[in-house]
Amino acid sequence: MSLINTQVQPFKAQAFHNGKFIEVTEASLKGKWSVVIFMPAAFTFNCPTEIEDAANNYAAFQKAGTEVYIVTTDTHFSHKVWHETSPAVGKAQFPLIGDPTHQLTRAFDVHIDSEGLALRGTFVINPDGVIKTVEIHSNEIARDISETLRKLQAAQYTAAHPNEVCPAKWHEGDATLAPSLDLVGKI
Amino acid sequence: MSLINTQVQPFKAQAFHNGKFIEVTEASLKGKWSVVIFMPAAFTFNCPTEIEDAANNYAAFQKAGTEVYIVTTDTHFSHKVWHETSPAVGKAQFPLIGDPTHQLTRAFDVHIDSEGLALRGTFVINPDGVIKTVEIHSNEIARDISETLRKLQAAQYTAAHPNEVCPAKWHEGDATLAPSLDLVGKI
Amino acid sequence: MSLINTQVQPFKAQAFHNGKFIEVTEASLKGKWSVVIFMPAAFTFNCPTEIEDAANNYAAFQKAGTEVYIVTTDTHFSHKVWHETSPAVGKAQFPLIGDPTHQLTRAFDVHIDSEGLALRGTFVINPDGVIKTVEIHSNEIARDISETLRKLQAAQYTAAHPNEVCPAKWHEGDATLAPSLDLVGKI
Amino acid sequence: MSLINTQVQPFKAQAFHNGKFIEVTEASLKGKWSVVIFMPAAFTFNCPTEIEDAANNYAAFQKAGTEVYIVTTDTHFSHKVWHETSPAVGKAQFPLIGDPTHQLTRAFDVHIDSEGLALRGTFVINPDGVIKTVEIHSNEIARDISETLRKLQAAQYTAAHPNEVCPAKWHEGDATLAPSLDLVGKI
Amino acid sequence: MSLINTQVQPFKAQAFHNGKFIEVTEASLKGKWSVVIFMPAAFTFNCPTEIEDAANNYAAFQKAGTEVYIVTTDTHFSHKVWHETSPAVGKAQFPLIGDPTHQLTRAFDVHIDSEGLALRGTFVINPDGVIKTVEIHSNEIARDISETLRKLQAAQYTAAHPNEVCPAKWHEGDATLAPSLDLVGKI
Amino acid sequence: MSLINTQVQPFKAQAFHNGKFIEVTEASLKGKWSVVIFMPAAFTFNCPTEIEDAANNYAAFQKAGTEVYIVTTDTHFSHKVWHETSPAVGKAQFPLIGDPTHQLTRAFDVHIDSEGLALRGTFVINPDGVIKTVEIHSNEIARDISETLRKLQAAQYTAAHPNEVCPAKWHEGDATLAPSLDLVGKI
Amino acid sequence: MSLINTQVQPFKAQAFHNGKFIEVTEASLKGKWSVVIFMPAAFTFNCPTEIEDAANNYAAFQKAGTEVYIVTTDTHFSHKVWHETSPAVGKAQFPLIGDPTHQLTRAFDVHIDSEGLALRGTFVINPDGVIKTVEIHSNEIARDISETLRKLQAAQYTAAHPNEVCPAKWHEGDATLAPSLDLVGKI
Amino acid sequence: MSLINTQVQPFKAQAFHNGKFIEVTEASLKGKWSVVIFMPAAFTFNCPTEIEDAANNYAAFQKAGTEVYIVTTDTHFSHKVWHETSPAVGKAQFPLIGDPTHQLTRAFDVHIDSEGLALRGTFVINPDGVIKTVEIHSNEIARDISETLRKLQAAQYTAAHPNEVCPAKWHEGDATLAPSLDLVGKI
Amino acid sequence: MSLINTQVQPFKAQAFHNGKFIEVTEASLKGKWSVVIFMPAAFTFNCPTEIEDAANNYAAFQKAGTEVYIVTTDTHFSHKVWHETSPAVGKAQFPLIGDPTHQLTRAFDVHIDSEGLALRGTFVINPDGVIKTVEIHSNEIARDISETLRKLQAAQYTAAHPNEVCPAKWHEGDATLAPSLDLVGKI
Amino acid sequence: MSLINTQVQPFKAQAFHNGKFIEVTEASLKGKWSVVIFMPAAFTFNCPTEIEDAANNYAAFQKAGTEVYIVTTDTHFSHKVWHETSPAVGKAQFPLIGDPTHQLTRAFDVHIDSEGLALRGTFVINPDGVIKTVEIHSNEIARDISETLRKLQAAQYTAAHPNEVCPAKWHEGDATLAPSLDLVGKI
Repeated sequence: MSLINTQVQPFKAQAFHNGKFIEVTEASLKGKWSVVIFMPAAFTFNCPTEIEDAANNYAAFQKAGTEVYIVTTDTHFSHKVWHETSPAVGKAQFPLIGDPTHQLTRAFDVHIDSEGLALRGTFVINPDGVIKTVEIHSNEIARDISETLRKLQAAQYTAAHPNEVCPAKWHEGDATLAPSLDLVGKI
Repeated sequence: MSLINTQVQPFKAQAFHNGKFIEVTEASLKGKWSVVIFMPAAFTFNCPTEIEDAANNYAAFQKAGTEVYIVTTDTHFSHKVWHETSPAVGKAQFPLIGDPTHQLTRAFDVHIDSEGLALRGTFVINPDGVIKTVEIHSNEIARDISETLRKLQAAQYTAAHPNEVCPAKWHEGDATLAPSLDLVGKI
Repeated sequence: MSLINTQVQPFKAQAFHNGKFIEVTEASLKGKWSVVIFMPAAFTFNCPTEIEDAANNYAAFQKAGTEVYIVTTDTHFSHKVWHETSPAVGKAQFPLIGDPTHQLTRAFDVHIDSEGLALRGTFVINPDGVIKTVEIHSNEIARDISETLRKLQAAQYTAAHPNEVCPAKWHEGDATLAPSLDLVGKI
Repeated sequence: MSLINTQVQPFKAQAFHNGKFIEVTEASLKGKWSVVIFMPAAFTFNCPTEIEDAANNYAAFQKAGTEVYIVTTDTHFSHKVWHETSPAVGKAQFPLIGDPTHQLTRAFDVHIDSEGLALRGTFVINPDGVIKTVEIHSNEIARDISETLRKLQAAQYTAAHPNEVCPAKWHEGDATLAPSLDLVGKI
Repeated sequence: MSLINTQVQPFKAQAFHNGKFIEVTEASLKGKWSVVIFMPAAFTFNCPTEIEDAANNYAAFQKAGTEVYIVTTDTHFSHKVWHETSPAVGKAQFPLIGDPTHQLTRAFDVHIDSEGLALRGTFVINPDGVIKTVEIHSNEIARDISETLRKLQAAQYTAAHPNEVCPAKWHEGDATLAPSLDLVGKI
Repeated sequence: MSLINTQVQPFKAQAFHNGKFIEVTEASLKGKWSVVIFMPAAFTFNCPTEIEDAANNYAAFQKAGTEVYIVTTDTHFSHKVWHETSPAVGKAQFPLIGDPTHQLTRAFDVHIDSEGLALRGTFVINPDGVIKTVEIHSNEIARDISETLRKLQAAQYTAAHPNEVCPAKWHEGDATLAPSLDLVGKI
Repeated sequence: MSLINTQVQPFKAQAFHNGKFIEVTEASLKGKWSVVIFMPAAFTFNCPTEIEDAANNYAAFQKAGTEVYIVTTDTHFSHKVWHETSPAVGKAQFPLIGDPTHQLTRAFDVHIDSEGLALRGTFVINPDGVIKTVEIHSNEIARDISETLRKLQAAQYTAAHPNEVCPAKWHEGDATLAPSLDLVGKI
Repeated sequence: MSLINTQVQPFKAQAFHNGKFIEVTEASLKGKWSVVIFMPAAFTFNCPTEIEDAANNYAAFQKAGTEVYIVTTDTHFSHKVWHETSPAVGKAQFPLIGDPTHQLTRAFDVHIDSEGLALRGTFVINPDGVIKTVEIHSNEIARDISETLRKLQAAQYTAAHPNEVCPAKWHEGDATLAPSLDLVGKI
Repeated sequence: MSLINTQVQPFKAQAFHNGKFIEVTEASLKGKWSVVIFMPAAFTFNCPTEIEDAANNYAAFQKAGTEVYIVTTDTHFSHKVWHETSPAVGKAQFPLIGDPTHQLTRAFDVHIDSEGLALRGTFVINPDGVIKTVEIHSNEIARDISETLRKLQAAQYTAAHPNEVCPAKWHEGDATLAPSLDLVGKI
Repeated sequence: MSLINTQVQPFKAQAFHNGKFIEVTEASLKGKWSVVIFMPAAFTFNCPTEIEDAANNYAAFQKAGTEVYIVTTDTHFSHKVWHETSPAVGKAQFPLIGDPTHQLTRAFDVHIDSEGLALRGTFVINPDGVIKTVEIHSNEIARDISETLRKLQAAQYTAAHPNEVCPAKWHEGDATLAPSLDLVGKI
């Protein structure tokens, strides 16, 4: 079964966030929109570019009332050092979650058994903890955070306007469609 | 387990393609790149906009040596009528696969049991029939085919250059990264 | 076990009926007689002739206080388009049920696994939701709705006259038989 | 699973036929068309009228190269006496099969467990022993053998002309349909 | 385990008795002595001679307060015709039970699976529904009802005189034995 | 399943016979007819009368080429002493089998679990080791050996004349019946 | 697990004792000491010598407040005859238990499956029904009852003096040992 | 199942014997008679008296071609120290087997689970490794080695004279019994 | 799962301690610190040197409020003799536990199945019965009790100072570390 | 079962070693002695002190022909950064193995499920890949590498001198013990 429209499973993890260690659980994801971004490992090559991309767009996510979470199977200790030593990662003002128990990578179905690391998975989650979009790449292919932002905005728009749908390549401000009997077979 | 880096399962289906009924199987996906696009149902609202978006970009996919497949749980009979009656769908020059047996929606994990319909799932598949990217939306949120094209190109580039990776927001022509011991902990 | 004299199983489906989408459930079949007619797929060859045959006899079914239901594994969206585009199907004033979940084709044991389509099955159902006659054809062989009408009338007559039975080739108005000890071995 | 398009299961039974006791097996059904007619019990009320109806149409079945078989769960001994004592049954020139082991009633799914008797089931079977039509009634509702003859003739016609189908209420000599891509959505 | 000294299992069957159809159950066997006689099939060869033998001795059974039951796997309809057409069977004034469900032949362990018919089994049953004697023959060997009467009388005598036993070849009126310590090893 | 027309199971037992201890097995029962008579226990009350009854008729059994076997769950040692001390048992010229292992009482389904003793069971067995008649009494009811002789003779006659059956109360020399189609429903 | 220091299992058996038949159960063994002696079969060779040996020492057992029980798998009927006819067995004033159900031989683990007989087992049991000594011989080796008496007396002495133990070859009246820390490693 | 007449199970153990450590296995028991004597623990109270009793009779066992083995669950190290420090145990010229793995105490069914120690079990074993007598005491009751010697001699005599049995209280040189048909019921 | 930070399992054993036999259970280990030391067997070679080593350091353990327990699979009887006869073992003022049931060697996972003996295992246990350190050697390698003392003191120090940890080669009195966010990645 | 004297299980892992990434498997541990040291996590508090302690003693291990391996559940990427940034860890000239798959922590039974981290476990392994000593601490208690060196030397000495054992607190050069019968019970 696809994870779309299912609840995030219960979890408990330690994160490095703005110079402190904090605990993050499934309750942390309730009450506001979240974007959860898995990546393979600290101190590697592509991951810092993706974190920097997220950091550069963080203002837009915050404007959309959304928290961003980075997850790897490293510890929160490694995340602190990574944050201190990497110019790119150092820009992150959002939590860097450590998942050495593999609880999160398994719950989101992005675990690579033979490596103990995560695939590049991105999940848009609504304030009820329900997953609305799933995106997973083989690890050599990085993401574009602006597309994640577009999906988030479409998810937020349709949540706010339950009788409308966002058509192909919809961006914030574009026209939407209101499904009706009359339109069946006419588009 | 995620479908990333697994083989497409064997299947057999009927499609409407350029005025004919053809048979499509897992063998049809071998030897060239494929993009497989699931959508809920013929004659509905958002699906035609997504097919039109794909049709408008079909030249770029063809230039990238890639076939596009649309899949719904309708029959190929419905797909012929849809193609004939919808101005948007009528632009499609790629196969419209009928999946009334639900074989494909289950194999790609996009089936909605309570409706008998597909989620909006997009899959980039390499010439060996191996899935490289997965993208699935709740049905009220449509896709942007230009992002699919970007992922395809990144998948093709890294397949051709196995010692390089495509960094965040990479578009065709952008610089890539070559992982090395020296870079560990330095980005 | 044969379905004869068993209850229709619970179900929920969408239908196109007289220009609207309606929900049909097992409760819809209670309180009056029903004839449920399965056929393979919208937009095909033989199915419209059978729907037209039913439409031409619909007055007689209505006179017998009976609703007619057409069922295929297509969606109700396809049924709307079919009704609008087919001269034969356009005559139907009874509900066209969509069964993309295969709930009904499986419950009435007319599902073809390898095709995801229905066999030509016809069922006469009494106001308690109990199946009184079953008729199923291989799909190349169409039905004659006048025989279904004859069966319905015999079922109604014997329901109203529990001490009588309808003999071979009985048509409405013909004489019936009243079983009794005296007749045993005498006919 | 429906019995349509499945093989008759192996069986062995004794029958009374033209003054003799004969053995009937699944091999007896191979090489020519067959109509197998189940009914509840010898010496009862409606069954003789159905046998008489079949007897009166036997010439047409013979002309169509088809054997008729009557089956009840009585013994062949009872069938001999029934044939001798019932004016209606006495007209039968086809085999009356005894099924006291319930092998046939179970194989054709017409057995009533609580009574040890058969439902009124009719089966048209092709020369390969494959079931093409199924018809089953609650026992208070008798059949019309002329409809069985119509189905048989449609089954024979489509077997002989595999690219044609018989439309609704087709009778021998009527026009048929040849399915083609062009006709999809046009009838 | 032998059936001796076990309770008759619950059952429900239809019988032909003195011109009427009656229902017989395990409750029918309570409160008086019963003799239950199974035989293969109506309208056969040996069975009528056994029924006639029972009929000729029926007065003695009635004098002993005992009902006689004949059972075959035929229907009660066949039993009525048998009674009307066979001079031997026509003498029977006791119930002829039909067992087309095979409930009784299986409960008394006299069912022949390959034929669907009963073995020649005879059972003497006391007013508590407990089986006191069992006698079963291969079907080519008929019974002598006078021996059944002798067993019945011995069963009744020992039921009435619990401290006595009936010795070999005891007939009504013969001396009995009263077991005692003194007799041990002395006879 | 009834034991009628089944093979005697393999066994090995010790018997007292004409002043000697002998071994009896299932092979001993092959090649001639046998009558196997179970009784509860040596040194009791009714058993000697039954053995005496058998002894008095032993000449007739021998004339019919038949051996008689008495079986109890006592040892062959007890049987020797019983033979020496009981005037009635002392007449026995046939084997007295000891069955302290309960192998025979269980194989012939006459074992009483709560007592470790046999029921009064009598079995006529043909030269192939196949059981043709079964007779079992509750232990307070003794047998009449003359009826056993009658059954044996009927079994032997029908074995020798496979197209004939012995009618009710048949005794050696009486007329038999030859089943034929013509007789069906006529007796 | 050894039977030593376990409870005798519940049982019910018939015995011959001083000219009467009595019932013996596990309750009979409570409240006084018991010696239970199994032997193979009545009327054999060695068993009478062992019963005679027990009878000659019965006064000593009675003086020790102990009952003696003989058990074989014969019936109590056989035991009566054995007592009457054997000069040796006739001396027995203690119960001769019949165990045709094999309940006791199995509970005391002395049953020989292939013979249905007991091994020569001897058990000393205390007034709580707890087994204190076990002695079992292959049947060709008889016992010496004086050793059983010695064991009984040692069991009784240690039961009465829980701080003492009876050393090797202890006989009534001999010195005993009182275990103490000081003696550890000193004897 | 009793251990009587079963093979000793395979085992391997270390023993202290005449100043050396030796290995003892089931093979050590083959080819001559053995007496295996279990006792609870080294350095305790009663065990030395039993070892001394065995040592005092060792000449008679040797004359009978028989080895004696003492077994406890202690180690062979403890047995060496016991032999050196105990005047009684020091007399032993036969092997003292250590069984800390509990292999032997479990194989001979003398293990006390709650203590990890052996019961007082004595076993006479023939040169084929077959157990002929079993004797087990609750641990407060010691044995008399002279009775073990008597049993051994009876076992040896009957092994040498298979047509004779040793009667009750037989001692070497006493008369034996030769079972025969004539003796049945006469002793 | 490692035993570290798990509760000691319930047990009951006998020990020799200061000239007396005492019972030791899991409750004995509660309320103060314990060191449990397993060794293979009494009267062997290396074990006395280890006991002597422990005895020489016993004052330090007592000063640390800690009891020492020696455990082997021998009995407490052997331990008394060992204590009396070995100059090294005689120095022990702490309990010598006998574990002939193997309850402790299995609970602490130091049992050698093929020998019935313990491995050289050492366990530091806190006053809640929780195991804090595990150390197990192949039996040819003895321990150094001073290292056990060092571990005990580190365990006690960290129990008393929950915000500090003892660094490598810490000995009583050395500096400790106080983990803090600031130290992460800085040592 | 303890891991002592068992083979290291097959594994495959990446390590940082002298500026390079290398692969380490169970084969890497064959042919020379190894010391495998688990610790919780990179960048923490106590682990660097333990690595430094090992580094300071590495010359002695090398002299003893022994490789040292550090293992945490971090990646080899983190180990490279740790080595570069920690003054203490930077001294390590031996491999730092990354175990993000938890294959090693589970195989050596030092995994903490609730944290995804290792316990402080130390293992001395011989050139056949067989574990000779196990030492595991709760994580707040660090180790003393000099004791590990002592164990290694004792393991090497006894491997080279199979008839000798190393007594308590043995250090290289100390006297050893040669077990013999004479020493039993004498130390």
